[in-house]
Amino acid sequence: MNTLEAIHQRRSVKHYDPAHRMTEGEITSLMEHAILSPTSFNMQNWRFVVVQDTEIRQQLREAAWNQAQVTDASITIVLCAYLNSHRNPERYWKDAPEEVRNMMAPMTTGFYEDNAQLQRDEAMRSCGIAGQTIMLTAKEMGYGSCPMIGFDPQKVAEIINLPEDHVISMMITVGKAADPARGRGGQLPLSEVVVSDQF
Amino acid sequence: MNTLEAIHQRRSVKHYDPAHRMTEGEITSLMEHAILSPTSFNMQNWRFVVVQDTEIRQQLREAAWNQAQVTDASITIVLCAYLNSHRNPERYWKDAPEEVRNMMAPMTTGFYEDNAQLQRDEAMRSCGIAGQTIMLTAKEMGYGSCPMIGFDPQKVAEIINLPEDHVISMMITVGKAADPARGRGGQLPLSEVVVSDQF
Repeated sequence: MNTLEAIHQRRSVKHYDPAHRMTEGEITSLMEHAILSPTSFNMQNWRFVVVQDTEIRQQLREAAWNQAQVTDASITIVLCAYLNSHRNPERYWKDAPEEVRNMMAPMTTGFYEDNAQLQRDEAMRSCGIAGQTIMLTAKEMGYGSCPMIGFDPQKVAEIINLPEDHVISMMITVGKAADPARGRGGQLPLSEVVVSDQF
Repeated sequence: MNTLEAIHQRRSVKHYDPAHRMTEGEITSLMEHAILSPTSFNMQNWRFVVVQDTEIRQQLREAAWNQAQVTDASITIVLCAYLNSHRNPERYWKDAPEEVRNMMAPMTTGFYEDNAQLQRDEAMRSCGIAGQTIMLTAKEMGYGSCPMIGFDPQKVAEIINLPEDHVISMMITVGKAADPARGRGGQLPLSEVVVSDQF
């Protein structure tokens, strides 16, 4: 499947085959692709909590308006971000030339330090980018996926023991689709969402 | 190129061939793929400002620490979001069964109304997801791309006449790469960014 087909065919899957299990190899491959997603200053600020445990997924389901996809999918990934990723940034450039590392590392810390809104924006942006990588990789692997924000973030934070300096962006379920996705609900015309040069 | 190859081969391109122009057909195709990206409640809250105008791109470049990619790429896209997308949501479900539309529309408005942080989070998240769609589509079309947040958002807002109820998430340059991308700067190990079940 080429990339454009995957983009066209990816749809949000609400109903999964609960009997199907992804292999550990498939889950690792999915995550190996996720971490190839770009991040600002190469901070790799995402943290992916891959939940397979039955009991924990039941708790997540209860925190997510009892949506069955949370337990019926093969895995539920909670996409989180580490808000202090801008600190100690040298390692994000360990394989780069020394002059690049020496330029980028202090820029990274200075750009985000003492700017809580920017740190949070970056969490949401990075997880969004990586989220689409996960959903398209899943599609290529023959799996369905669904991005979710319909849950109580405080309850989910408690369930996954989220550290205080981390934030949740969204959840994504991944598994074997149980039935074909419905048609698209209502696409806005290109003319409404694409602007030439200026508003 | 299959999706996994595109994810592997996509790299942030800093140097573009300034003589190359994308055709209008290519730009339209890129945007037609971008709008297939999922959004919460199908709000399609992104607005893509595709800047080709030479003078406006020069202004954007000055607002972006004089980074040459802003004028050397074929297009510079400013990814924005409409913060009040949750209002009048019926049209996002115009092609869905009536009972779906009648359920989803009031849920959408209620979920975001009077919650400015959630509206902003959704702007960043949606633009992140769509941003990766744009970058992978560009890769499949033979183009390079680069996500950018190194700019003065207030100046860019003035340049593109951003309405008050919109927000900027990031910019993405797209064009013909002038030289091969450098190696990756320093990947964090999977064990640091992937968590099993709970932190």
